Amino acid sequence: MGEVSGPQCAVPAIPYQVHSFMTTITDLRVRDIRIPTSESLTGSDAMNPDPDYSAAYVELLTDHPSGLEGHGLAFTIGRGNELCVAAIEAWKPFVIGQSLEEIRGDMRSFWRRMTRDSQLRWVGPEKGTIHMASAAIINAAWDLLAKLEEKPLWKLLADLSAEELVACIDFTYISDLITPEEAIELLREREPGREAREEEMMNRGFPAYTTSTGWLGYEDEKIRDLCRQAIDDGWSHVKIKVGADLEDDIRRSSIIREMIGPERQLMLDANQVWDVGEAIGNMKRLAEFSPLWIEEPTSPDDVLGHAAIARAVAPIGVATGECCQNRVLFKQFLQAEAIQFVQIDSCRLGGVNEVLSVLLMAAKCGVPVCPHAGGIGLCEHVQHLAIFDYIRVGCSLENRVIEYVDNLHEHFENPVTMSDCRYLPPQTPGYSTTMRGDSLDHFEFPSGRAWSGR
Amino acid sequence: MGEVSGPQCAVPAIPYQVHSFMTTITDLRVRDIRIPTSESLTGSDAMNPDPDYSAAYVELLTDHPSGLEGHGLAFTIGRGNELCVAAIEAWKPFVIGQSLEEIRGDMRSFWRRMTRDSQLRWVGPEKGTIHMASAAIINAAWDLLAKLEEKPLWKLLADLSAEELVACIDFTYISDLITPEEAIELLREREPGREAREEEMMNRGFPAYTTSTGWLGYEDEKIRDLCRQAIDDGWSHVKIKVGADLEDDIRRSSIIREMIGPERQLMLDANQVWDVGEAIGNMKRLAEFSPLWIEEPTSPDDVLGHAAIARAVAPIGVATGECCQNRVLFKQFLQAEAIQFVQIDSCRLGGVNEVLSVLLMAAKCGVPVCPHAGGIGLCEHVQHLAIFDYIRVGCSLENRVIEYVDNLHEHFENPVTMSDCRYLPPQTPGYSTTMRGDSLDHFEFPSGRAWSGR
Repeated sequence: MGEVSGPQCAVPAIPYQVHSFMTTITDLRVRDIRIPTSESLTGSDAMNPDPDYSAAYVELLTDHPSGLEGHGLAFTIGRGNELCVAAIEAWKPFVIGQSLEEIRGDMRSFWRRMTRDSQLRWVGPEKGTIHMASAAIINAAWDLLAKLEEKPLWKLLADLSAEELVACIDFTYISDLITPEEAIELLREREPGREAREEEMMNRGFPAYTTSTGWLGYEDEKIRDLCRQAIDDGWSHVKIKVGADLEDDIRRSSIIREMIGPERQLMLDANQVWDVGEAIGNMKRLAEFSPLWIEEPTSPDDVLGHAAIARAVAPIGVATGECCQNRVLFKQFLQAEAIQFVQIDSCRLGGVNEVLSVLLMAAKCGVPVCPHAGGIGLCEHVQHLAIFDYIRVGCSLENRVIEYVDNLHEHFENPVTMSDCRYLPPQTPGYSTTMRGDSLDHFEFPSGRAWSGR
Repeated sequence: MGEVSGPQCAVPAIPYQVHSFMTTITDLRVRDIRIPTSESLTGSDAMNPDPDYSAAYVELLTDHPSGLEGHGLAFTIGRGNELCVAAIEAWKPFVIGQSLEEIRGDMRSFWRRMTRDSQLRWVGPEKGTIHMASAAIINAAWDLLAKLEEKPLWKLLADLSAEELVACIDFTYISDLITPEEAIELLREREPGREAREEEMMNRGFPAYTTSTGWLGYEDEKIRDLCRQAIDDGWSHVKIKVGADLEDDIRRSSIIREMIGPERQLMLDANQVWDVGEAIGNMKRLAEFSPLWIEEPTSPDDVLGHAAIARAVAPIGVATGECCQNRVLFKQFLQAEAIQFVQIDSCRLGGVNEVLSVLLMAAKCGVPVCPHAGGIGLCEHVQHLAIFDYIRVGCSLENRVIEYVDNLHEHFENPVTMSDCRYLPPQTPGYSTTMRGDSLDHFEFPSGRAWSGR
């Protein structure tokens, strides 16, 4: 793990001059990390009753004298994590031997190299394990670049010029919604106020909502207790899982609405269990609890279905994204006015580059981005993306909240810092994706102590 | 390989009485089979310049005294085949120990069991390697069932009642286009004439088109020679690859149209290389060659993009499907009138069950199904599906043609039989998916002689 491992140590300042010499990626290692979260039903929902939050964890090694490493991960919920591990191995020959200076110099080409091998592309294309594997490596490369420049990722991105940002993006298949020229123009138009927005982020942070109150596996009394706790803690937005049984959903929504009062926001998350007609019918019943959004009402592949639901349930918004495979899906959701909240997933989209394209499309369409988080490491990732989005792209906090789940942060070297229910901007160089060495060893599957004793 | 292996042997008649005892799946073996087709540029197109046609090949073993085995495969183009192998291994615990009688008795539940494990689903969902792996196993189970009933798969399906067919289908996410009740009604309405259509298939076979004339890697003179050959052989439909360079496309289309005359059909296949606006612009130039369809003009994920292209290029049709992940995509393509030809892929959709749902949706919408084939084993698969579709679902030959590529059939125990450019219905029990033992050994990656000598 080199110098960045060890329980309490932050990533050290790296003693070199940027661009004084070439830094080359010398190796890629990948580890199968699984946390037995199914034991507590944390993370349980109507589609995923017993997830074991897991990561296919990438370590990019370099020849930098400081032992510089980049880290990224594919998030899964247990079985199948080994498939992401294998897919990451498949991309290994495409990344080893590349210099960080070359990568940084042509980020669009790097992204294409890591997503477009014609043979590997066939088993996606641009979706599923092969795309999640690309994302883990691409994010690890961004972690490397940010560490090399001694900036947290959000700051690295926020300091890039409009042209540099757009040069990171592959506009293939999205040019009918946004062109590179339009993207540059949008970024330039929004430059006024960027320093003030950055300062606002530093002082107050980015608003969040909590999903910790309403996991489907919890009893009503536990939900009441967690609601009380959430109110005491100052949360203004609370999300609950629905979709297993409508009468249960109504009872639980009623409990939460009663507990949080009319002034706080309630969001519902059905985790894809309804058909289109069912979603519309069930939301007619659940509308009385005035939810801000219904999340994942049906298949994440169903653009037209979401559009039909959105028309039927307005003014309740429709949200989706955590299982949306790539920019082409988000393009269509926006074109069809099918979603009112864009829930980018940092590890399912093809890494930072593809996220940038979605942020720009959402901004052009005036739709807020509320990243999916939770899982393992997702909060650590998306805080960078949302803060950057506010400073340079979306430039608004209206209807913007990042998901927050108070779980598994202890396994990261630089866990998120929350203050008044807001994410404070990370200060440590990198993408906050570095896991602790002892956690990696303990939860490595199947050899780690968490699994081998079973 | 048991009794079904060996170069020339057909699957033997199985000496038992159906339902006289339970047959249980005792093991699943999977092999990584790769053919170095990139050496000849066969299969080259604008997106896939150098494919090595490959199969993650499934063998379902049983306790049947005859040594009964079921075979299926995930088709890939080389690198990444190992990921399908690993994904098939991941489903292994879900299939071993099941009896064929139980599977046959509740095909919908079997399909759900093989596609819906909540943890494995996350790395799709219902797409990419994990779904292709499900398909290979599900198809191998159908191969088993057909062998057990001593019928070719098309005949097994054609003999099922409307209720039995519909009981194979998971209508989740498609009930807004077709319900089980509507599907039964459609099948019943089309029962008149089924015997005559079956007889017609037996006598004449299902029409095909050839893709062997215009692979992108071929020189003009080779294309002329192949065109001449195709005309001599009696082909009425010819497909050419486009998309690398527009002027080249125009020249090659012009050559082929000149060679085949106005009375034969020309189809163009862009293999996803264009953006939406580009596809529309390029097709305005290529329209003068009066193509029947433009295939894969852009991303296979882009329903709205295909719809825009279809509106702009009419009366030229739009076709897609070989990279379309599941029934939810096809539902939307049909709802949006985005495609005029449904190109199901037998190995990318979740096996026979999900194909049935797409055939029914296409029939309801009056859109012809022209299966994707070629690759390795795809012709062997889809002939069963198209012949069944004609007898029971689509019930028309208008604008219906199956792709045919004269390549790699020699590796199958029961290769397709063509007569007058038509697929003759297979007669051997099963799904025609059983590969020859010597081919499997020779092309096993990386240990087989085709690879180990390199």
